[in-house]
Amino acid sequence: MTDLVARTRAFVREVVMPAEPGWGESIASDALERLRDAARDAGVYAPHAPVEYGGLGLPITQWSRVFQEAGYSPVGAAALGCMAPDEGNMRLLELVADDDQKERWLAPLVRGEQRSSFAMTEPHPGAGSDPAALATAARRVDGGWIIEGRKRFISGAETADFAIVMARTDEVGGATMLLTRLDAPGITVGPSIRTIESAIGGGHPYVTFDGCFVPDADVLGEPGAGFRYAQVRLAPARLTHCMRWLGLARRAHDTALDRANGRELFGERLRDLGVAQALIADSEIDLATSDAMIDAAVAAVDSGDTRAASTLSSIAKVHCSEAVFRVIDRAVQLCGGDGVSSGLPLIQFLNEVRPFRIYDGSSESHRWAIARRAASARERAVQAGAPRLDVVTP
Amino acid sequence: MTDLVARTRAFVREVVMPAEPGWGESIASDALERLRDAARDAGVYAPHAPVEYGGLGLPITQWSRVFQEAGYSPVGAAALGCMAPDEGNMRLLELVADDDQKERWLAPLVRGEQRSSFAMTEPHPGAGSDPAALATAARRVDGGWIIEGRKRFISGAETADFAIVMARTDEVGGATMLLTRLDAPGITVGPSIRTIESAIGGGHPYVTFDGCFVPDADVLGEPGAGFRYAQVRLAPARLTHCMRWLGLARRAHDTALDRANGRELFGERLRDLGVAQALIADSEIDLATSDAMIDAAVAAVDSGDTRAASTLSSIAKVHCSEAVFRVIDRAVQLCGGDGVSSGLPLIQFLNEVRPFRIYDGSSESHRWAIARRAASARERAVQAGAPRLDVVTP
Amino acid sequence: MTDLVARTRAFVREVVMPAEPGWGESIASDALERLRDAARDAGVYAPHAPVEYGGLGLPITQWSRVFQEAGYSPVGAAALGCMAPDEGNMRLLELVADDDQKERWLAPLVRGEQRSSFAMTEPHPGAGSDPAALATAARRVDGGWIIEGRKRFISGAETADFAIVMARTDEVGGATMLLTRLDAPGITVGPSIRTIESAIGGGHPYVTFDGCFVPDADVLGEPGAGFRYAQVRLAPARLTHCMRWLGLARRAHDTALDRANGRELFGERLRDLGVAQALIADSEIDLATSDAMIDAAVAAVDSGDTRAASTLSSIAKVHCSEAVFRVIDRAVQLCGGDGVSSGLPLIQFLNEVRPFRIYDGSSESHRWAIARRAASARERAVQAGAPRLDVVTP
Amino acid sequence: MTDLVARTRAFVREVVMPAEPGWGESIASDALERLRDAARDAGVYAPHAPVEYGGLGLPITQWSRVFQEAGYSPVGAAALGCMAPDEGNMRLLELVADDDQKERWLAPLVRGEQRSSFAMTEPHPGAGSDPAALATAARRVDGGWIIEGRKRFISGAETADFAIVMARTDEVGGATMLLTRLDAPGITVGPSIRTIESAIGGGHPYVTFDGCFVPDADVLGEPGAGFRYAQVRLAPARLTHCMRWLGLARRAHDTALDRANGRELFGERLRDLGVAQALIADSEIDLATSDAMIDAAVAAVDSGDTRAASTLSSIAKVHCSEAVFRVIDRAVQLCGGDGVSSGLPLIQFLNEVRPFRIYDGSSESHRWAIARRAASARERAVQAGAPRLDVVTP
Repeated sequence: MTDLVARTRAFVREVVMPAEPGWGESIASDALERLRDAARDAGVYAPHAPVEYGGLGLPITQWSRVFQEAGYSPVGAAALGCMAPDEGNMRLLELVADDDQKERWLAPLVRGEQRSSFAMTEPHPGAGSDPAALATAARRVDGGWIIEGRKRFISGAETADFAIVMARTDEVGGATMLLTRLDAPGITVGPSIRTIESAIGGGHPYVTFDGCFVPDADVLGEPGAGFRYAQVRLAPARLTHCMRWLGLARRAHDTALDRANGRELFGERLRDLGVAQALIADSEIDLATSDAMIDAAVAAVDSGDTRAASTLSSIAKVHCSEAVFRVIDRAVQLCGGDGVSSGLPLIQFLNEVRPFRIYDGSSESHRWAIARRAASARERAVQAGAPRLDVVTP
Repeated sequence: MTDLVARTRAFVREVVMPAEPGWGESIASDALERLRDAARDAGVYAPHAPVEYGGLGLPITQWSRVFQEAGYSPVGAAALGCMAPDEGNMRLLELVADDDQKERWLAPLVRGEQRSSFAMTEPHPGAGSDPAALATAARRVDGGWIIEGRKRFISGAETADFAIVMARTDEVGGATMLLTRLDAPGITVGPSIRTIESAIGGGHPYVTFDGCFVPDADVLGEPGAGFRYAQVRLAPARLTHCMRWLGLARRAHDTALDRANGRELFGERLRDLGVAQALIADSEIDLATSDAMIDAAVAAVDSGDTRAASTLSSIAKVHCSEAVFRVIDRAVQLCGGDGVSSGLPLIQFLNEVRPFRIYDGSSESHRWAIARRAASARERAVQAGAPRLDVVTP
Repeated sequence: MTDLVARTRAFVREVVMPAEPGWGESIASDALERLRDAARDAGVYAPHAPVEYGGLGLPITQWSRVFQEAGYSPVGAAALGCMAPDEGNMRLLELVADDDQKERWLAPLVRGEQRSSFAMTEPHPGAGSDPAALATAARRVDGGWIIEGRKRFISGAETADFAIVMARTDEVGGATMLLTRLDAPGITVGPSIRTIESAIGGGHPYVTFDGCFVPDADVLGEPGAGFRYAQVRLAPARLTHCMRWLGLARRAHDTALDRANGRELFGERLRDLGVAQALIADSEIDLATSDAMIDAAVAAVDSGDTRAASTLSSIAKVHCSEAVFRVIDRAVQLCGGDGVSSGLPLIQFLNEVRPFRIYDGSSESHRWAIARRAASARERAVQAGAPRLDVVTP
Repeated sequence: MTDLVARTRAFVREVVMPAEPGWGESIASDALERLRDAARDAGVYAPHAPVEYGGLGLPITQWSRVFQEAGYSPVGAAALGCMAPDEGNMRLLELVADDDQKERWLAPLVRGEQRSSFAMTEPHPGAGSDPAALATAARRVDGGWIIEGRKRFISGAETADFAIVMARTDEVGGATMLLTRLDAPGITVGPSIRTIESAIGGGHPYVTFDGCFVPDADVLGEPGAGFRYAQVRLAPARLTHCMRWLGLARRAHDTALDRANGRELFGERLRDLGVAQALIADSEIDLATSDAMIDAAVAAVDSGDTRAASTLSSIAKVHCSEAVFRVIDRAVQLCGGDGVSSGLPLIQFLNEVRPFRIYDGSSESHRWAIARRAASARERAVQAGAPRLDVVTP
């Protein structure tokens, strides 16, 4: 594994970084394709995907260091074929799809011939902070399902070939995941939604389903099991986001350290000025605790303990999304005027990661869920016999 | 005064807000001129400037509420002729310029016929965080001074007519302020520096002085008194920044409150969900303490106690720049996906205010100065007889 | 006023500080009486109380600097007769009591011949965070009222002579305030509740009312107006707490500055080590914003705008209680091992102020109220015509 | 291991907790001895110590969960024989002592027949934040060494049987560790220093060495290797502190959860009130990140990579010491008046952990070291060829 970390590190720093898009721009499609070809040649492409479909087959417990290296560039994960939402979709397909589906949908995705989206989020009052509010519906017809509804913030849909669509299926209860090409009849991609992050193209558009037919062969897993599969996808997808952004935070922090080492102020090196030291130390703490928290959450995912995986990945998501924002924000601060202008990429990095505190469940939604789960777990413990600790002694 | 607050409020909300530039864009010059004409007609233009030169003559102790109303739009202060750096330059000219200079430089500035810059900051290792490192120099020649040097981050210089230039004048000791048109021989404006804020044009370019001649009549105040005048300009200029940005933070907070009042989640209004309440309350505290701190610092400026003015305006600058950032950041958070996309202006507001934690002295530079001043003040108190309090009793 | 500030400052530092109780102890009654006599002699006693009853008659807008000087010692306000709950009770009596009551209850209180309590808080589920849950009741009888119920956390009741009791009076609606001696029949003071703060005696015991008779002449103000009077008392009482504790925070901060100035580490003065500078600067910011926020809230109280007074005093209470805790906590940190041991009083100061984040409404209760008020105020503004700002543009 | 966790958990909750000392008191010696006997009987005593000397031989990678269970009571670790400084001394002796020393010093320590101290810290200007300032010296004499000097904050020395003393040994260079009984001639224990934590007796007194003779047989390891051994002891000792205090933070958090589950306010359970949820969620995040960070640092210690062990244990120490303080502080807040009074132990827990932010290197000292190490590591990377990232593009 160490070897793959080192090779990914070298590839990202030597090949990807020189090809990054300009300040506030997205990487061009052809530039990205060239990077992907180079990644394949370098043997670092699709590290997380199954070997039988063309990936490197790295077990999830070893993803973090590789994904952090990928994330050192805002386009690194895209170059390596392990960016969202493709990476999460690959894992979901690997775990849930049947062999035929794997051949038709997973294989071209791993090979980088196709791109994908995950169509779950809806305009208010649909599935957003509250997934149970899912409004898009699929109804049973002969040989398949007809989807009606509207999705929003569907990352990558403007350039994706297909999508995994989450739809309420009242006839079987619950929700169901369905695979469909995005150029299928009855699907409209757009209008676009401009967001503040820009490095990766594909947008976050609306996607409208108006009588879109999906044959039974393209139902992913069991009809009605959609919410369960969403959980399967969710915890690791949160964590790979954390890994990639943590890599970008390391890049920003290294930039700040270079400035602190190289810049003199008031006759001293910036690194020796105390207020700078406090910023550097706090960023080191944020980086190390994020790294450790990711490992702890990945271990829970790997153990198969879904309750622990859900809780710890939720905590990791909140902590990391806030920590990487703070780290990059401090780097901006340490670089002064250069930090907020186009001579350095730092303020763009800040804009790249800002939405992560909102996407995949906002910090507030997660905190609410974390608190509820904690209170309920303790309540169960007390009901099981643990003495209440808040009883006041006279 | 209350009346002017109300009229400014109405003007900004009814006239300026509908004319704001699009997401990530700058206001067009002609649109800005139309707003300024409308502001003059509405009797709200140049509230802070002296009546004899065309302003409304509001005393500094009453600026805050008016400037906050102006700042409710990112282009409000520009529309009202009280944006930086013009507003700070007007005050400096009012306090230091002679009558002839006031007629030639101040009057057209107040009337909005001209725009100005303040050319102090230099590329490293010149005047940046450490003003004493001033490298641009003016040498004495017959009838005036010749300026040589390079400035950077000179806000507004791309569209300004003239600048107040800070230059080392070794022949008289210290530094001197000089007035010069920016199209004068020996001055090159540019290259531009792209920064993350965008609402107001004019840029933050490099300005190079290569043998630029300034006649004695355009020396501002006493030769050699430049650093003292810089202080005169500095404290109020920091505070008017605080006032304007505080207004923008109120706008973002109002936006978040509208969302909290209008949006339902999990069957409750967002305003009744606790984690949202914590964000709202913290923003209220940030807004109220910023408002109070500005008033306290303005009172110190108005009292003529320059040490207190410097200390308190420094504290106000750090507190407000960080508080407005937090308030807007929380508003982004409360608006979820809309907070980071182009349907709402919030993430652009965040980018507008981010540099304020760096410009006019970074939070770190100010903290460093605040700590030193506090330690020295206490040291003087102890030397004057106050018992040392840290002596350990056995 | 300045003169009284200076005299209070001198008295507290020269007379009170040498008489402070030992580490973790309460001041002895006789020592306190001697300090009060000295304060009367020095003309600094009861600065806030009406002149006709023996106070110095300082208007509320001038209390802050005097009370901060008093608070520089944890027993300063007690020595000067302006500690809680006496000080708040004096103000309430001054504003609400009739002349006869002022003579019988206010005058001896101002003269320091008697001490008082304010009996509002009750054991759960009575009046605590939620005052509307008031359970103690007074029922109408011939010539007066009979009180039944139980109070808790009644500060000072162990040494107080009388109390103002808040009781539900269903026969007239709402609640009523009643004056009663604490040695009256039907009143039991105790058991004690040990709390972590210790400098001032008097405790925070339970007080039980079992058939306690209060004659009509001792009803404070209008029957049924108790909640309104509680508001009258509340906002200023919160603010005087802020003032006093802010004084103690200044003392801790001065102690830390003395240590930073006097201690060398790694060959540099502690004050020149950056991480220390960050702590010092943050404390300066906390002190200055607290001071400014108190002034802003006092101005609102003084203006008679009860809604603004309530909101701003609530914000001031949260901000100051948290800021003074942080300032003292940083001082502990800067003094290292001495900070947590008996050679310095700092850790005891931290314990003195810790409860202030809970008493008089916890930070959480206040935040909850602040958020609700802010959301409602904005809702009214929108209903009155302000355009909703959270409408997403397509 | 799981079994030992469960048994420790049961023992601490069922046997130790009922025997805890009263509010603000220390556990009595005989009560502690009884607990230790019970722990031996229950097979949970000295989990970390080598089996050949009477411990349970748990590898360091498995300490955390056991020590957290021990720390659930403030006297749990003392009852289990794994409290500081004994536990750190045992590990040091295990790694450095020769067999004879192990028999004479380690064995009785593991068996609980003796207690120990670690005498390194000195009064200013000796070894404190800056260990290099070590002033206590040992000079070579026939057959041994003579120690002269003064130590301070020597935890447990008032009841300890022996100490490991750190002394400068100029004749061999560097410092040397020496073992001595504390009742040896030339040693004075005292005066005491009262500190704010109280649960465990033994104090933190001064210890003075005035001609104390230590024979060669009691020199620990190599003469002159003291600083290296101090590092060996330091990283794990920091981490076991983190583990124990994290356990206490879990206890406080459980107390708060019980209150949140059981208390109604404004007609809702406290757990459903949002501001409470924010506190609970933040504590969950603090607990989980502390737990993960401890594991990451322990893994580094276990790997033998001393640089990583030092950096990560330093980061863990800062993060955990601040996190456990915040968690207990929030628990105090959630329990309101009970949180700061003697009906619950919470405020005492807060006082128990407050010094941990200072002992073993203050947060500020660690941050300073963390920042320096980070800047230097990056400097080495750049010198080894990594491109500087802070170069501004034109």
